[in-house]
Amino acid sequence: MISTPEIISYLAATLTTTSFVPQAILTIKSRDTESLSLGMYSSFTLGVLCWLVYGIYLNDKAIIFANAITLLLSSSILFFKIYNMVSKKKA
Amino acid sequence: MISTPEIISYLAATLTTTSFVPQAILTIKSRDTESLSLGMYSSFTLGVLCWLVYGIYLNDKAIIFANAITLLLSSSILFFKIYNMVSKKKA
Repeated sequence: MISTPEIISYLAATLTTTSFVPQAILTIKSRDTESLSLGMYSSFTLGVLCWLVYGIYLNDKAIIFANAITLLLSSSILFFKIYNMVSKKKA
Repeated sequence: MISTPEIISYLAATLTTTSFVPQAILTIKSRDTESLSLGMYSSFTLGVLCWLVYGIYLNDKAIIFANAITLLLSSSILFFKIYNMVSKKKA
């Protein structure tokens, strides 16, 4: 049976990851990253990568699950942010 | 001595928490929450609270540390968001 701490960890994973989805969808759809902070997304993406590595070390499924998905979303946003900055410089 | 996984977890905690600071400072200073999503901040704040509870259960200092500070920042933003919504309705 699934334990209470496990339920809490999956609830946590679902809530924090889900809260990130609308921004990711908006950015991927619109490709508009003007109002997003490069510093914030760089720091956040690197941090999420570290949490993922730590989750793998702990062998904690909820931490791995949450951070793998968040990393995917956050790095997509970061990719468009950097892509737009490079394109703008070239133009 | 501090172990490598511990270093990674503290690095993760510092990076993801720090990435949240500029938004919190901006919101606390300006009190402007017009462009912030209530759904996102509600879900995120509740999720961070769950991570904190899970961190306490795991007795993992980095998870507790990161989520305690993020909870403080995120709930401040959420507080101003709800406060502004209520004030606007009353006006």
